[in-house]
Amino acid sequence: MSAYAELEEHFGKAGRLGDAIGMLYWDMATMMPAGGAEARSEQIATLRVIHHELQTDPKLGELFEKARDEAGLSAWQIANREEMFRQYTHATAVPSDLVSRLSRKGAQTEMVWRSARADNDFARLAPHLAETLELVRETARIKGEALGLKPYDALLDQYEPGGSSETIDAIFDDLAGFLPEFLEAVLAHQAEQPEPVMPVGDFSVERQEKVARRLMETLGFDFEHGRLDTSHHPFCGGVPDDVRLTTFYAPDGFLKGMMGVLHETGHALYERGLPAEWRYQPVGAARGMSVHESQSLLVEMQACRSRAFASFVAPMYRDAFAGTGDAWEVENLYRVMTRVERSLIRVDADEVTYPAHVILRYRLEKAMLAGELEVVDLPEAWRAGMKELLGIEPPDDRDGCMQDIHWMDGTLGYFPTYTLGAMTAAQLFAAADRALDDLDGQLARGEFGGLMGWMGEQIHAKGSLLSTEALLTEATGEALNPRYFKEHLRRRYLPEG
Amino acid sequence: MSAYAELEEHFGKAGRLGDAIGMLYWDMATMMPAGGAEARSEQIATLRVIHHELQTDPKLGELFEKARDEAGLSAWQIANREEMFRQYTHATAVPSDLVSRLSRKGAQTEMVWRSARADNDFARLAPHLAETLELVRETARIKGEALGLKPYDALLDQYEPGGSSETIDAIFDDLAGFLPEFLEAVLAHQAEQPEPVMPVGDFSVERQEKVARRLMETLGFDFEHGRLDTSHHPFCGGVPDDVRLTTFYAPDGFLKGMMGVLHETGHALYERGLPAEWRYQPVGAARGMSVHESQSLLVEMQACRSRAFASFVAPMYRDAFAGTGDAWEVENLYRVMTRVERSLIRVDADEVTYPAHVILRYRLEKAMLAGELEVVDLPEAWRAGMKELLGIEPPDDRDGCMQDIHWMDGTLGYFPTYTLGAMTAAQLFAAADRALDDLDGQLARGEFGGLMGWMGEQIHAKGSLLSTEALLTEATGEALNPRYFKEHLRRRYLPEG
Repeated sequence: MSAYAELEEHFGKAGRLGDAIGMLYWDMATMMPAGGAEARSEQIATLRVIHHELQTDPKLGELFEKARDEAGLSAWQIANREEMFRQYTHATAVPSDLVSRLSRKGAQTEMVWRSARADNDFARLAPHLAETLELVRETARIKGEALGLKPYDALLDQYEPGGSSETIDAIFDDLAGFLPEFLEAVLAHQAEQPEPVMPVGDFSVERQEKVARRLMETLGFDFEHGRLDTSHHPFCGGVPDDVRLTTFYAPDGFLKGMMGVLHETGHALYERGLPAEWRYQPVGAARGMSVHESQSLLVEMQACRSRAFASFVAPMYRDAFAGTGDAWEVENLYRVMTRVERSLIRVDADEVTYPAHVILRYRLEKAMLAGELEVVDLPEAWRAGMKELLGIEPPDDRDGCMQDIHWMDGTLGYFPTYTLGAMTAAQLFAAADRALDDLDGQLARGEFGGLMGWMGEQIHAKGSLLSTEALLTEATGEALNPRYFKEHLRRRYLPEG
Repeated sequence: MSAYAELEEHFGKAGRLGDAIGMLYWDMATMMPAGGAEARSEQIATLRVIHHELQTDPKLGELFEKARDEAGLSAWQIANREEMFRQYTHATAVPSDLVSRLSRKGAQTEMVWRSARADNDFARLAPHLAETLELVRETARIKGEALGLKPYDALLDQYEPGGSSETIDAIFDDLAGFLPEFLEAVLAHQAEQPEPVMPVGDFSVERQEKVARRLMETLGFDFEHGRLDTSHHPFCGGVPDDVRLTTFYAPDGFLKGMMGVLHETGHALYERGLPAEWRYQPVGAARGMSVHESQSLLVEMQACRSRAFASFVAPMYRDAFAGTGDAWEVENLYRVMTRVERSLIRVDADEVTYPAHVILRYRLEKAMLAGELEVVDLPEAWRAGMKELLGIEPPDDRDGCMQDIHWMDGTLGYFPTYTLGAMTAAQLFAAADRALDDLDGQLARGEFGGLMGWMGEQIHAKGSLLSTEALLTEATGEALNPRYFKEHLRRRYLPEG
């Protein structure tokens, strides 16, 4: 057997094991009774240890050496080998002692955070967060050396392979220069429009679920290869051949639940469309978090908050939820779905203000990692950043710098992928619009075959064959360019501007 | 670290991994869409390979050598070590080539069986079954040598550790001498009683599920540590801290679904009651299949088909299913629940005729393993056995020797555990009845605390500390004695006899 073939077998085993872990996580969030938590964490921890043993197997170093010189590998095989090597480098770079110290400290900080946030007590959290950060800094430094990357980029690489803070800086600075003034203009424009009215109807779980399934089918979701369930926070889990997505049905409204389903279906269709012939191999997996988020936001934001889709879905919603009255008219529903507000909380933000939340976090986490911002100074820096980017200041830390879970367990380098995803979605949608005949008309008829077919070919089927930049360039003709996102926002939110 | 401690760590890892596999099987039977089957079998196969690698790790031989001489081990630790060694011996005895040949051939035979059974075509099945049997014979011979057991007992040991065909022969011969004549008497007695009338009501799934959950709560099931779902065949899966049981709700009746729930709850309570301090260790697991079946049959047959429980449950059923009329009276419901019939199919058999089905299969599989019965002669031997033990003959092989899946993938040595379980249940129930104050009255009030508390102490909490025989002797004062089962049958089915 060639060294490459041996690597494939080895990583295929790790891939299947990783899929099993994914299923156990899905169950934990959807089906598991509370009393099963401890046993589940034992199961998952055991599988993760075995997974880590596979990824750091001492024989791999030599196999990579040999495989590097093997001739006759296809482009897919070469990309697969490089992706394996990237995973191997991440897994082996950091001493296991540091890995477990960060894991323990992160779990502790997260626990402290839960109660400290409830009590709005940043002082109680600060020393724990500082310790966590110290361990993240050490991890980033070591990974950076192993990967030949700047410390921040080494963290970023875990979620966004090949991503660079230099590129992100330029893109986010561009956007940060645009957003505050744009937001003012949008709010002024909105003030001149009729107030959106929340539609009233029968939003029982049964009705919502029925509509959710119908939306998924409209998008092309195949229930022979997946499920829809509920969980506290919507997510997309499972495995490519059995994609499990969830949403949350509010008792007093349908939009959050439905938009959640549309968003997660975007993720799910990406997973379903990954190249089946590379199943379980690193090259067969999704490219990275920004591309993944681009697929969910393409469906949710680009396609399904469009006026075209609103005209398709408004009568369907009205019938399905037994609604009556003007609030169910297309124009009002569209206004509801595209309402913009300055708000404190990222997860509730609309697509205009969301990037400002992300840019703030990106800048702060970079500064903290570089040692340019101390944890004790975080609340003040947060308020200043909110003021600058969003024009409001949080009244407390609970809804300020303590609102997100990410930093607590040491997850730095993840935040930027949300907004990179939003911008990628805009650029991909613009390219699809150029390539397809009357995309707007298709969406107005609830036809997604064209859009998702194009996306399947251009993005889904390519797995991790190309770098994120090359993938986007092949699909759209250029690397990520904030222009498309800004144009999209202008068109949707300042139609007369 | 002592060799024993190292063994504990190693088998603990295998135990957690085994639990993860259990969860994936549960999901496969309850939640998984059809299109997820291939991916799931890949996940499970990968975990099973890793599990097998753990159980056959080359370092184990030496660890067992050392641990054998280590002083100061507690009785639990010694039992744990011996149980580990038993598992290790089973896992290492058979060459992996033979394991995989049997696994492949078994899967193929099972596939042929599905269509051959549908077509009532034993001739098509026979050569495949014969090949499977040949591989089972070889396996049994090799395992027997490794374990110092007769070939049949080596197979039995996989499901019923320490079980012996010599003991079973004596017990089953005793029962086989009793049953045919007893069955005649029961049928004659029944003929003099009023015909049972099937109660009519609203058997919607919603109602059935509500009652099922109420029955489970009555038995002491804790929904913080488990779930109830549906599957094609009822089963009890999951793990001790998160027991997942299922049933099947027929659209036209409630009894099958409810008795299924009661049966599986018996299994579930055993799992829940296993010693938490030995979680993931072999000694912390259930003792074997006959004890497991004793717990389900104790609940279903001994407790819940009693007249006492019928008097508690009849009015509850009537109200819950919106029933009216005399068919919901206690006496009629009890007659329905204890109806005896000569029937062809084991899984539909009542508790009087069930042992006859099992004894037939036990005798035939022993004869086939010993080479005393050829596969081609199986249909004839089956008919003769049915005639002798049950007084009827199957009109075809579909409902004759082709009705069960067990032999198809090479599962021999399992069948006797069903009836050993039934007899164990009777003996345990008799002992509990002696130990408890007015058990009948408790059941008539729907109180299970006494019975299940006694069972928890005597059986559940002991895990695999003792041999099956010692466990039963400690709990009841003697080894398995068919007397209790026969007395139970006489009392219930020939009340005036």
